[in-house]
Amino acid sequence: MNFRLVFKLCGRLLLVEAALMLLPLITALVYGEDPSPFLKSIPIVAAVGLVLSLIPADRHFFVREGFFAAGMLWILMGLGGALPFWFCGQFPTVMDCVFESFSGFTTTGATILTNIEALPKGILFWRSFTHWVGGIGVLSLSLIVLPSLGGARSQFLTQAESTGPIASKLVPRQSSSSVILYVIYITLTLAEIALLLLAGMPLYDAVLTAFSSAGTGGFSNMNLSIAAYQDPACEMIIAVFLVLFSLNLGLFFLMVCRRFKEVWRNDELRFFLGAVALSTVIIAVNILPMYRDLGTALRYSFFQVASIISSTGFATADYTHWPLFSQTLLVLLMICGACSCSTGGGIKWARVVLLLRNIRREIHRIIHPRSVMVVRLDGKAVSDETIRSTLVFLSSYFLLAFLSTLLVSLDDQSFTASFTGVLACLSNTGPGLEAVGPYGSFQPFSSFSKLVFSLCMVLGRLEILPILVLFSRSAWKKT
Amino acid sequence: MNFRLVFKLCGRLLLVEAALMLLPLITALVYGEDPSPFLKSIPIVAAVGLVLSLIPADRHFFVREGFFAAGMLWILMGLGGALPFWFCGQFPTVMDCVFESFSGFTTTGATILTNIEALPKGILFWRSFTHWVGGIGVLSLSLIVLPSLGGARSQFLTQAESTGPIASKLVPRQSSSSVILYVIYITLTLAEIALLLLAGMPLYDAVLTAFSSAGTGGFSNMNLSIAAYQDPACEMIIAVFLVLFSLNLGLFFLMVCRRFKEVWRNDELRFFLGAVALSTVIIAVNILPMYRDLGTALRYSFFQVASIISSTGFATADYTHWPLFSQTLLVLLMICGACSCSTGGGIKWARVVLLLRNIRREIHRIIHPRSVMVVRLDGKAVSDETIRSTLVFLSSYFLLAFLSTLLVSLDDQSFTASFTGVLACLSNTGPGLEAVGPYGSFQPFSSFSKLVFSLCMVLGRLEILPILVLFSRSAWKKT
Repeated sequence: MNFRLVFKLCGRLLLVEAALMLLPLITALVYGEDPSPFLKSIPIVAAVGLVLSLIPADRHFFVREGFFAAGMLWILMGLGGALPFWFCGQFPTVMDCVFESFSGFTTTGATILTNIEALPKGILFWRSFTHWVGGIGVLSLSLIVLPSLGGARSQFLTQAESTGPIASKLVPRQSSSSVILYVIYITLTLAEIALLLLAGMPLYDAVLTAFSSAGTGGFSNMNLSIAAYQDPACEMIIAVFLVLFSLNLGLFFLMVCRRFKEVWRNDELRFFLGAVALSTVIIAVNILPMYRDLGTALRYSFFQVASIISSTGFATADYTHWPLFSQTLLVLLMICGACSCSTGGGIKWARVVLLLRNIRREIHRIIHPRSVMVVRLDGKAVSDETIRSTLVFLSSYFLLAFLSTLLVSLDDQSFTASFTGVLACLSNTGPGLEAVGPYGSFQPFSSFSKLVFSLCMVLGRLEILPILVLFSRSAWKKT
Repeated sequence: MNFRLVFKLCGRLLLVEAALMLLPLITALVYGEDPSPFLKSIPIVAAVGLVLSLIPADRHFFVREGFFAAGMLWILMGLGGALPFWFCGQFPTVMDCVFESFSGFTTTGATILTNIEALPKGILFWRSFTHWVGGIGVLSLSLIVLPSLGGARSQFLTQAESTGPIASKLVPRQSSSSVILYVIYITLTLAEIALLLLAGMPLYDAVLTAFSSAGTGGFSNMNLSIAAYQDPACEMIIAVFLVLFSLNLGLFFLMVCRRFKEVWRNDELRFFLGAVALSTVIIAVNILPMYRDLGTALRYSFFQVASIISSTGFATADYTHWPLFSQTLLVLLMICGACSCSTGGGIKWARVVLLLRNIRREIHRIIHPRSVMVVRLDGKAVSDETIRSTLVFLSSYFLLAFLSTLLVSLDDQSFTASFTGVLACLSNTGPGLEAVGPYGSFQPFSSFSKLVFSLCMVLGRLEILPILVLFSRSAWKKT
């Protein structure tokens, strides 16, 4: 393992993080707030970054270095991002700051705060901004690190680069693909800000909401989350953008290239949109007795489905008061998550589709033992390697969920809160059921549990394996 | 699909079931009870069995017929076994009878009864006897149907038949292996009855308890389950036998042959015994404040660990009052279940071991991309086919658990009760947490939910795929 290079990379990223903190610093100054949290944090992060980035290192960079770097990066960025929270003096313990920062950068949106509006505007800006920055990190990860794994996540983009002659000319190299994704990400963010402003939301709120939507994070600057605005127009704009940010962002590129057929052939997209539509209708019918009419029920239902399936966690209603059926359906959507190559979390619909098709294959193999059935995604055969990776991922996901619940249950909170809290962190959604619902908080849990939850967020965000690599003894051996 | 042969087989088994009902009939007569539930059921089951078994059929029997038959057999046996419950008039609805019968034959042990001791002794005999019969069914299944799948479950026995020269001479054919397993099963049952009698348990109770232990079912004839006897000696005898019945019964054969090295090389055995020992100590420490001393805590802890990991569900304490950590650990053990080729349920420790080794392989592949690592079980390389089957099984297991929870949550019971209820049925354990705890009952759920729970039991018992085959359109096509 080329540790020097990994830490050099981390150093560079910390320098970037220090630079990013200038934005909330400016915000604090604009609103006449105490800028000291940032004035203290920036030099620390920059100094550590500078020291690490000056490490001399050779350029041997392989898959294992990529995975190791991804794990370390997220952890160091998270720790650096916790500094402003600590220096603002509104967070009870160091672990609370780390939890909130990890929740931000992993675009989870789980919070330990109980009165969000009590925080200064600069700090809240940083809090939502970490989502947006985390979102860029996720996109980079899905392009640079994970394709080498051959996992389902990279399915689409490898295809986009290899099928048509147009695309292969437009995006011949990985770096070009990254640029295209970043441009789409920034454009969609700006579009959401513009539409929210048009709908009458104040600039500050619009920017923060767009940051949290883009990263599918879920931190809001309001105690009531999106319900604070009581504005159906804003709700619909946000919900639609949440769905857009859950899609494979590469599809937007195909649409710009007018390759609509390929877009529609994307299995994940059809399953995902089908799930959104179906869940919206089912939940609306289920919660109908609680609301005036079907229109209102659909409004709340669609917003919550978009918020949870995108792994964001914004709320316009306290769904913990809905019938259990709707709550369980939301938990199921939370686990399935968004599409690959988006900023969303969860196990991703491409993997759900692959699992369903593998089950079909196993049944087929029993009924017709001599015929061979190939598992396809988007019309193309999926390699056995990819299938095995996907299945190992799925099984480890649930194994980790139960093991984490076990650790967290040491706090003797309810089983439902512990289990759905873990699922909410592992899927990078944020809110779960009961005490950790959309208007709840992770504050009742101990510091140890908050550490477990934070690790779940990073595990979920990095798709488990890069973090497990960090814990592997042989990864730490010098070669 | 050779339907004629499948239904012919089902018919024969129904005839056997009718014959088996003679035992509870005799019990009812001995205790001077009304024999009519059995006098009415036996002719019905026998008549249906006779009609089906007279179907003329050719002998084409392939893997698909085996799976199809396994699914149909369990369902028809379950329906037939529900008749005495219905005719005794103590069960509120038909669905309740079906639930109880399915719970019996699948050796789950979940009940809808709230006052068990109100039932006649003949009916209670039948209830526990279905566990014992179900256990034989499970052993046959693991020998006859599942090996053709190449799944982890058959791992051991295929090995036992192929490794040493002694074994291959002793068990050259499948039918011999079956006989060996049945002999071990019956011997262990008789040994448990004898020891329980020695410890002072009445004959009737000893027989019923041994039936339920052998099938790792969990139906007791006492409202308080094993706690009713308040006898540490009985508790320890039962707990030890539960552990024995959770082991790969083939290992007993190896021990009789004095092939101890092979027994100890069995990975699953070591993991399983390790899990039992570790969980017992951890739970004892966790519940220590609730009991007088460490000895008492260990006594309750060991019993409950043995009861849950073996997927039985007997109780000597209401663990829903234990700290959440112990409860969650029990749920985790419930999911992992027993060893392959036992009457126990759950996903089986062989699969847990395979999953852990596959995760290790994936990490190894990232760190050393060019080296190939083989996944081994008991020192032998496991085929890619087996690994994929195992991983598909694990993922489908959790997928089914969440989908079933969704259906059951229509009843608006708590999430914990719904989810752990599903897990308890899918793992064939019986009790879950909260309302469906060891002293609870599935009675609060609707008939629809009871149907879902019953299906979960059969799905869990038949390791999911045979039941999914029943739902496949192409299985129903004539060829």
